[in-house]
Amino acid sequence: MSDVLAFVDANLGRFRAELYDFLRIQSISTQKEHEGDMRRAAEWLAERMREAGLEASIHDTPGHPVVLGEWRGAGESAPTVLIYGHYDVQPPEPLDEWASPPFEPTERDGKVFARGSADDKGQLYMHVKAVEAHTKANGKLPVNVIVLAEGEEEVGSDNLVPFVEKHVERLACDHVVISDSNMFDEGLPSVLFSLRGLAYFEIHVKGARSDLHSGQFGGTVVNPGNALAAIVASLHDADGRVAIEGFYDDVATWEDDILDGIRALPFDEEEYRRSLDVPKLGGEKGFTALERLWVRPTCDVNGILCGYTGEGAKTVLPNKAMAKVSFRLVPDQTPERVKELFEAHVRKVAPEGVTVEIKALHGGRPWRTRPQGKLVDAAGKALEQAFGVRPVLQGEGGSIPIVVDFEEKLNASALLVGFALPGCNLHAPNEWFELAAFDNGIKALCLLYENLA
Amino acid sequence: MSDVLAFVDANLGRFRAELYDFLRIQSISTQKEHEGDMRRAAEWLAERMREAGLEASIHDTPGHPVVLGEWRGAGESAPTVLIYGHYDVQPPEPLDEWASPPFEPTERDGKVFARGSADDKGQLYMHVKAVEAHTKANGKLPVNVIVLAEGEEEVGSDNLVPFVEKHVERLACDHVVISDSNMFDEGLPSVLFSLRGLAYFEIHVKGARSDLHSGQFGGTVVNPGNALAAIVASLHDADGRVAIEGFYDDVATWEDDILDGIRALPFDEEEYRRSLDVPKLGGEKGFTALERLWVRPTCDVNGILCGYTGEGAKTVLPNKAMAKVSFRLVPDQTPERVKELFEAHVRKVAPEGVTVEIKALHGGRPWRTRPQGKLVDAAGKALEQAFGVRPVLQGEGGSIPIVVDFEEKLNASALLVGFALPGCNLHAPNEWFELAAFDNGIKALCLLYENLA
Repeated sequence: MSDVLAFVDANLGRFRAELYDFLRIQSISTQKEHEGDMRRAAEWLAERMREAGLEASIHDTPGHPVVLGEWRGAGESAPTVLIYGHYDVQPPEPLDEWASPPFEPTERDGKVFARGSADDKGQLYMHVKAVEAHTKANGKLPVNVIVLAEGEEEVGSDNLVPFVEKHVERLACDHVVISDSNMFDEGLPSVLFSLRGLAYFEIHVKGARSDLHSGQFGGTVVNPGNALAAIVASLHDADGRVAIEGFYDDVATWEDDILDGIRALPFDEEEYRRSLDVPKLGGEKGFTALERLWVRPTCDVNGILCGYTGEGAKTVLPNKAMAKVSFRLVPDQTPERVKELFEAHVRKVAPEGVTVEIKALHGGRPWRTRPQGKLVDAAGKALEQAFGVRPVLQGEGGSIPIVVDFEEKLNASALLVGFALPGCNLHAPNEWFELAAFDNGIKALCLLYENLA
Repeated sequence: MSDVLAFVDANLGRFRAELYDFLRIQSISTQKEHEGDMRRAAEWLAERMREAGLEASIHDTPGHPVVLGEWRGAGESAPTVLIYGHYDVQPPEPLDEWASPPFEPTERDGKVFARGSADDKGQLYMHVKAVEAHTKANGKLPVNVIVLAEGEEEVGSDNLVPFVEKHVERLACDHVVISDSNMFDEGLPSVLFSLRGLAYFEIHVKGARSDLHSGQFGGTVVNPGNALAAIVASLHDADGRVAIEGFYDDVATWEDDILDGIRALPFDEEEYRRSLDVPKLGGEKGFTALERLWVRPTCDVNGILCGYTGEGAKTVLPNKAMAKVSFRLVPDQTPERVKELFEAHVRKVAPEGVTVEIKALHGGRPWRTRPQGKLVDAAGKALEQAFGVRPVLQGEGGSIPIVVDFEEKLNASALLVGFALPGCNLHAPNEWFELAAFDNGIKALCLLYENLA
């Protein structure tokens, strides 16, 4: 193993430079104009997989391609690890809030700033480099490895489950390892016990045949902007709870050791509040911030557009209004059930005089695990060796919908071990990834493969 | 007078062609990039005034210039009429909803479609042509005339009152005539007994230091989009009344003859509803549609912008949200008092955890008159002669804030007689003006000057 870790140390500069090339490709899966960039990112990644000693292949889907890298030289008696990540990124907007261009990786204060640096190109690339360290230093890996990189994680992974179902035998594995989440804090790595799910919608409110003059018509029609505000406002009660009938019916309870573990974590809500620069924290009453993040569901506006939003005063009575509204779900909620409840709620509260349409954009199931056994032990040891500190268990407020599918379809256990840091601006301007976490994380992954063997 | 009317008939084609040149100038007062167009429109108008026999001058203001046209040849014993109009227009957005380009006047179905055709370039230009008909046919006008055209009506007329105050003696007059409103219906002209006022605001809600990932932070902060929706929703109660404490305190009662007159007008609410293509009319319970339009105040969203509004699902927790919200006021409400009440209300309902700022964009006082006496009689007769039907009295839901100021500063009585038609898409895509109303209206104005002498 010392050769492997020495190889990592000797090549860190090159590893970073390669990652920055990866980050320069504008692989925005949700925007049609970036289809060519998505293809370029897939080809770039396949080429780097080959250089790392993997057999790489690109698989077309009805959406963006899946990239597969395989090495099966450890033999049938060795475990097989499927490493999952994604090479697509969120849109960079609003552009004017980036201190440096989103697709020009820029190092500042021990971090690299770029869209995708943390979510998830940086973390996916760490696995490719850990594989390379083994193959270049030792000529082989201690386990069989399949790297599966998709290009549709940010748009709902619609084509991934069909891909997994089609290739169940080829993807057969013992463990699924995913690095698409955070460490608990700087220098303090963690293993996840949960992920939230997602149910994402658009509400479209339509009024008169066209925009109208607010003086000549104001007072005789229902304003779609006001109607939309009423619908959105009706989604919460005064205690910050989601006010949709039945919404909490499927929310599961948690084991005491998990809840005790959350309360024991070194987390300062006041410092967290200051770091966000808000006058007061929000959310559901009666729970700590970490509980609200990890084991309670939410409902948030992601966007609203209505009428005239340019400079100055336009006295228009708009004829349509749109809101993007999404829910983070916890076990055992499902996006399908939440869709039914949400639609029923909106039907109930929507004012007469306008028509309201709901579009479901995408959804994903939440995930939970009992964090114990061989896989978690191997990860704990590897993280402690690489970071010099015992990792903690934590939940994750974000979603990786495919985890549940991997476990079900491949009958494998999943390990979620992430290397981004809290506050790294995922899905926001100025996304960043800590360089020390990149370096130590690659070593931890090298050790993880070794420990699993 | 027959020479004057014959001149109008003989020159209608040229009058329209000139108007279309006027409409081609993109005189959008609220957008800085159109400052040059505003200047061009002022110069174009001054030149046409000169051709019509007026002495024209352009007066700079801290905003857009005022154009003045004067003819004082009728002598001191004849009345002086100040004609007010505006050459600025609303922004044309949303552009993709125009059937023909907003600044390329296009005739269809007896109408001309263009931004400003009805509001107010078309109506202002009718006065210039009525003046021309008198001076060209008779060599003189029956009354002294001052035409005052401003370029800031759509942005609050901030510099007009200072201009009037500065030129009180030069602008001294007996009557102020304004054509910036509608006829009651096709072929049925009207004189106004009221205008609503306006109080226009922006609400800015600010949350965390930046946009956040909705999974990694959702549940711990107050979402500015949800907070804004709650604030906007709180502005109305279930009966469509404005739910701001004290909002109705200053709403005056109306004379019985006015209210009886409103109820006697030929107005079919079902047909109105169909023309707007809405499933049901809206507004304050307990009043007819015309009452809600003319003698009751309103509160409407004019625009909302928050977070990600592009294609697809971006799981962002936005850090700011903005709404444009405006009130139409009725006598004796004032924009100043409504601002106080609105601010107090928002302070009361704004959730903790975000900061809320209110910007007052502009305001204007409502106007009412007792529609009787020499001025209204002269107008009634002129309209009946030109249109062949007795005009009706009506209110107007829109605002012309300067009317109250004219009456007060110049100690003159105002006559509001408009020639646009209901449904002409003021402030909306596909604004239009009826060509027959343009033609007959010019004749009515020629007769009005005559009747006033």
